[in-house]
Formats: sequence, C-alpha cells, structure tokens
Amino acid sequence: MSRAAFHLTSNQFTKSKQYEQYTKLFECDGVREISLREPKTRNSLSLSMMEEIMQHLCAEWHNKNLRCIIISSTGPVWSAGHDLKEISPECGVEQQTLVFEKLAKLVENIRRAPVPVIAKVNGIVAAGGVQLVASCDMVVCTEKSHFMTPSANIGVFASTPAVIMSRLMPHNKCLDMLLTGHPITAQDALKYGLVSRVVSEPDLDKEMEKIIISIKSKSRAVLALGKEFFYKQLELPLEQAYRQAIKKMIENLNLADSHEGIRSFMEKRKPNWSHM
Amino acid sequence: MSRAAFHLTSNQFTKSKQYEQYTKLFECDGVREISLREPKTRNSLSLSMMEEIMQHLCAEWHNKNLRCIIISSTGPVWSAGHDLKEISPECGVEQQTLVFEKLAKLVENIRRAPVPVIAKVNGIVAAGGVQLVASCDMVVCTEKSHFMTPSANIGVFASTPAVIMSRLMPHNKCLDMLLTGHPITAQDALKYGLVSRVVSEPDLDKEMEKIIISIKSKSRAVLALGKEFFYKQLELPLEQAYRQAIKKMIENLNLADSHEGIRSFMEKRKPNWSHM
Amino acid sequence: MSRAAFHLTSNQFTKSKQYEQYTKLFECDGVREISLREPKTRNSLSLSMMEEIMQHLCAEWHNKNLRCIIISSTGPVWSAGHDLKEISPECGVEQQTLVFEKLAKLVENIRRAPVPVIAKVNGIVAAGGVQLVASCDMVVCTEKSHFMTPSANIGVFASTPAVIMSRLMPHNKCLDMLLTGHPITAQDALKYGLVSRVVSEPDLDKEMEKIIISIKSKSRAVLALGKEFFYKQLELPLEQAYRQAIKKMIENLNLADSHEGIRSFMEKRKPNWSHM
Repeated sequence: MSRAAFHLTSNQFTKSKQYEQYTKLFECDGVREISLREPKTRNSLSLSMMEEIMQHLCAEWHNKNLRCIIISSTGPVWSAGHDLKEISPECGVEQQTLVFEKLAKLVENIRRAPVPVIAKVNGIVAAGGVQLVASCDMVVCTEKSHFMTPSANIGVFASTPAVIMSRLMPHNKCLDMLLTGHPITAQDALKYGLVSRVVSEPDLDKEMEKIIISIKSKSRAVLALGKEFFYKQLELPLEQAYRQAIKKMIENLNLADSHEGIRSFMEKRKPNWSHM
Repeated sequence: MSRAAFHLTSNQFTKSKQYEQYTKLFECDGVREISLREPKTRNSLSLSMMEEIMQHLCAEWHNKNLRCIIISSTGPVWSAGHDLKEISPECGVEQQTLVFEKLAKLVENIRRAPVPVIAKVNGIVAAGGVQLVASCDMVVCTEKSHFMTPSANIGVFASTPAVIMSRLMPHNKCLDMLLTGHPITAQDALKYGLVSRVVSEPDLDKEMEKIIISIKSKSRAVLALGKEFFYKQLELPLEQAYRQAIKKMIENLNLADSHEGIRSFMEKRKPNWSHM
Repeated sequence: MSRAAFHLTSNQFTKSKQYEQYTKLFECDGVREISLREPKTRNSLSLSMMEEIMQHLCAEWHNKNLRCIIISSTGPVWSAGHDLKEISPECGVEQQTLVFEKLAKLVENIRRAPVPVIAKVNGIVAAGGVQLVASCDMVVCTEKSHFMTPSANIGVFASTPAVIMSRLMPHNKCLDMLLTGHPITAQDALKYGLVSRVVSEPDLDKEMEKIIISIKSKSRAVLALGKEFFYKQLELPLEQAYRQAIKKMIENLNLADSHEGIRSFMEKRKPNWSHM
C-alpha cells in the first residue's frame, strides 16, 4: 500500500468531530488511533465514552485505505472501567443493562472489524478496561503498565471482564485477580496470557510502528479473511476447525491478492496488492 | 467483616474431632485451614483422608463467618496422590471406582464452595495430589515445590489428573509431564499455568495473609456470586457467556452489599458489609 | 523393555527405502526418527515429503518394540511449510485441497499414534511447519530455534496452522504472529505454549535421550491408553471428562502391566512389562 496520507471524507470528518468529546481521533496513512482523553474520570467507560469509541471503531470499515485501528489512552490510568455513577442503584436495571451490553457490543465489534485492532497501553488498566484491552487482537503495553480487577472491593464482582480473561488465562490466575483484586505487572500479564508484547516506555511508539509496518505491507483482504476465520474457528472442535480451515485456505488462494502474492514471490519482486 | 474470632458450634467441633485422624483443622477469624498430617504415607489421598478433607471442606458453608478455606500439608511431600493399596488389583472394580469418584467429588466441592479455596503448597505434589491442588481456586506455592505425575512408572497413567491439567496447560506440557513423569519446578508450574503464585519459603505465610486480608475485606456474598458464575461460564461459547455475565452483573448490583459498596465508595468511606 | 536393537522386517525395510527420498529414517532400540532431509527446499512440506513422513509415521504401529517416534530435520530451516508450487493458482482447487488435507491427516495421525511423537527442533519453523511441530505430543527445541507464520506476506493467511496454535496460545499471541508474521524466539514459544522444552544446542541430544529413557522405562500399553484418552477428553465438558477418566482409570488398572506395575512397586523391585 502506498504511504499516501489517508483521509476520511469531509462529511465523515465533521461527523467524527461530534464524537471527540471524550476521545481524540487520529487518522494518518491508513492507521486510525482512538485515544481516550478523560484523565479526570480516569478514562472511565461511561456510556458516552463507549459510544464515541464505538463510532470511531466502526466508521468506514469498507474504506480500503483503513489498515489498522489502535486504541490508546492518556494519563496514568488507561481506563478504570465502567462509570460507577451509571450503574449505581438509582440508575435502575434498564440503564445498568445498557452499560454492560454497550461494552459487550464494543468488544464484539473489535472482533468483527476487518482490520487488526491493537490496544496500546501505558498505565493502569482496571475492571472493564481489562475487558476492553483483553478483547483486542493484540495488546502492546509498557513495563510500567498494570492490570487489575478490584471492583469486588466495592461490591461488584468483575463478571463481564472474567469472560474474556478466563479465555486467555488459567482459572487460578483469573480467580486470583478477581477474588483478591491484586494488580499484576506487565511482565506477569505477558506470561499469564493477557497481553502480547511488553516494551519499555520509550520504545512503545517504535514497537507500534514496527507492527503497523508489517500489517500495512500485507493485503488488507487477506488479513480480513484470516482474522474473521480465526475467531470463528476458536470455539469449534478441532476436527471441524481443520475442515473449515481447509475450505478457508482454498477461498484465500482464490483472492486476487493471493494470486499476486504467490506470483510476486516466485518472480522475486514486491507484491502489488489490490486489497481484494 | 469484624476480626472477632470465628467459632464452630461445639457440636460441629466435636464432630470435626472425629475427623482429625489424618488431617488437622484450624479455624480462626473466618479462615479454615485443612492441613494434611500423614507424612508417613506422604499424605496419600486414602479414602479416609479424602473423607476427612471432604467433611472439613463442606462443613457449615452457610456460616457467614467462614470467609476462606486453605488446604495445606506437612512434610516434604504435600501429597503423593491416591493410596496404592486402595486401587491394587485385589481391591476390585467397585472400590477402585469409589477411590477415583471420591477425589472427583472432592474437587467438584472445591468449585462449589461459596468461599475461595486456596492450596498452600510447600513440597512435592504428585499424581492425585496435582489434581487436588490444580482444582483449587488459587494455588500459592514455595520455590522449592515440585509437581509431577509419575504414576505411569507403576503402570497407571494419570488420566484423572490429566483432566484438570489439560484445562490449565497446553497439551504438549501436560503430555510431557504425563508421558515422562518428569517433575516441574514451581517457577515452571507458574509459567505453564498450574499455580497462581510462587514465593520463597519464608514468605509463604505472609503471602497467604495478604490474600486472606484482601478476601476478608470484601463481601462474602459478592465473592460467592462471582466464583459460582466464573466456573459456570467457563465452558460456554463466548457470546452466551457474555449474555449470562450481563445478567449476573445485574443480579450482583441488586445485592445489599453492592448497594453498600457503591455508596461507601461515593461517600469516600469504608464499606460496612452485611454479606448479603 | 530390553535394550535389544529394534528391527523392521526386511520387507518393511525395503518398502521404507522407497520412502527415503526426502527424509531419512532411523530405527534403533525402539526409537524411530523421521528426519526431514531437503534443506534445498528448506524442508518444505511437499505432497511427496508429507507422504513419506506419513508412511514412516504410520508404519508398524502394532509392533510392540516401537516405543517412540521423533520428527527431526536438517539444515537451518526445520521446515518452511507447504510447497508454494503445489498451491499456486495453476494447481487448481483439487490439488490445493489435497495439500492441506494431507497435512491435516498427518497431524491427526500424530495424535492417533500409539506411542509418543516428539518434535526435535533446531532451526526456523514456519507456517505449515509450525502446524506440524505444534501438533506433536511434545516439542523439544534449541535456544536458537524460531517460530513464525509469515505467509500473509505472500497473500496466504496461515489459517490451518492457526487451528492448533489457538488451542495452545492465547488469542492475542496467535494473532500477533499471524497478522504481523514476526518470528518468536524459543523462550517465547515456551512461555506462550508452543513448545514444551527449550535446551541449548549442545544439550539437545542429551535431552532427547532423557525423554526416551523415561518413555522406554514405562509400559507401552499404559502410555498408549493414556495418550488416546488424553486427546479424547480434551474437548469434553469438565464433568463428562472426569466421568470418562474414571472409567479409563478402571480400564487401565485391569491391564496386565498395571497389575505388574503396582505389584513390583509393593515388592520394591523393577517392573517387568509385557506391554499389554
């Protein structure tokens, strides 16, 4: 893909402006970065904040120039999770349900997005924040980052974060975090399954850049097909997963970009992707 | 919860006395410790030993003062697993079945217990001992601890321990232990998924105390609800797990202790749990 | 088992000769080593190569002298995965399907083999090579080994390797490898779940020997029963897995070698296996 700047249509741009109250949106060269910007609420995932992230996350999925989405944050707390004021007893069951459903929908859309969604973490991630981060396709964090689910301290067991945590980590490590509320370090998060890369703080941008370059050097269509299949096969029995993987491989080999990729390799030249 | 001493009724206490032939029971301040005390059989899980652990484990679940159950052991071998004499050919199929069913029932009750069950390990854990330890909600062990499933050496593949091991560790690490019988160190057990914390021997009690304090600072009702849901959702497909987690969150927010927890947080004071 | 040399029948030996064009077969003392020998194609898993491995892998499973199968390789690249020439657009859907089905069948037979199948790795493993290695019962690799799935670089997402990778590693680590194509080191492969042991290069043979000795000191029948059950229970719900494990334990205790194993242990002597 050419390194020409990536622009949303001006219509989209205007629309996105309405959605930069709690977040900041950057789009450049095919990379969309959604940055949480509410340090005063410790980037709590209020309904408005989640709605903004959702709008940014789901915009223009069909734009072939979009190659990668990054969710980042500012301030010492990456995100403290749900906004307590929105799930307090006075809010009523209907709104409480809305809050948890919103985050579930958000993390579902991370999986559905046709491009890789990467969490870029440099700080403390708590409760619903852990659910958001752990649901990304990849998680890159700095050494100083910490992860915790301490909400039982205020009478709320982190049952929704537990769903994705327990699909990444052994049950005893999840329950240790959930029952005690103790934070784990970035290195432990890496060892236990919660994140995919840990770097020193000064290296964070460089590491993100490396990942972006490798994603952009590939065909969007191929990564989209692969990512979609990956999540689909995760819950199938092994034999069935292999049967479907073989079909998916054949489908993949029929993509224009697969033809181009193999041909370019044999001709010892760079591939020229059509992203189809 | 107040730090007032926790007492079983005298009736219970008498009953438990009958059950301290192979184990020692300590109850203090809401913490019940079941300590295996048969170093001469390397704390083998004989039917009598398992029956004692079961009685201690399952006593007075409805007593609101009970906050945490610890399974510990004395001697260099934490537990060597089943008592060979009870599964030898002469015993017959009926008793052999009883032996394996007893341990399966025991580990099922660890999951069913309304309070966290923590394995405290300082020594060698083998075969059925691994099944018991790996089934606890959390496992804290010392650096010198080792874990192994060497029973194929005497013609018995550790198929029952394999069930829980393979739900914590990748298949190649399980099969390495099961097929070769080689022990793994505490640090490897931590890396591979078998335990949740490793500490130096002198720090073991301090680490347990830290965990107990964090558990006791929370609402019993909230942890009970959370633990029960955690195991229930483990085997559901992701989407279904999230749907049930959202319902569970609403149920949680309706608990008296959840109201109190959120209120106390907003009023910047310590919560006063009713454990309901 | 006696350490007497293990010989294939001469008929088998002749047959195997036809199958040593891309591989080299060693059989000695109950250990069969299948060594990939096509460094000029970076040991690519061509249909012929896979057919040879399959023949060697599946030969004489009922020969009681066979105790262990090792898959090794020569050259800096352990295996680069499928042969691109065999899945290029000109090959047509039928042959492309054949290629992926062949590898799926091969890894299925690794699981079905009645003896442990161990990958011995000293080099770079890529794409389909990762699928092959990660499907072995155990994986022993050297510090210098690397693992990667970079085929999206040429327009082919590694969907078939992803099936087994995602059953060993958390989703974010898989997707990091699959979407970026970045290699991971042996130590990371160990931490993340892909391999079971890492040793320095000079220690590789010694480590393999240690594993072989422990396997050969056990009953073939017991390991065969255990391995078969292990894979069968992997995908069952926990409770069902325990129920079947208990039945399997009883079946195991009825084996002649289980009787002998327990008796020898009680009589404090070495067991004398009949491998039944």
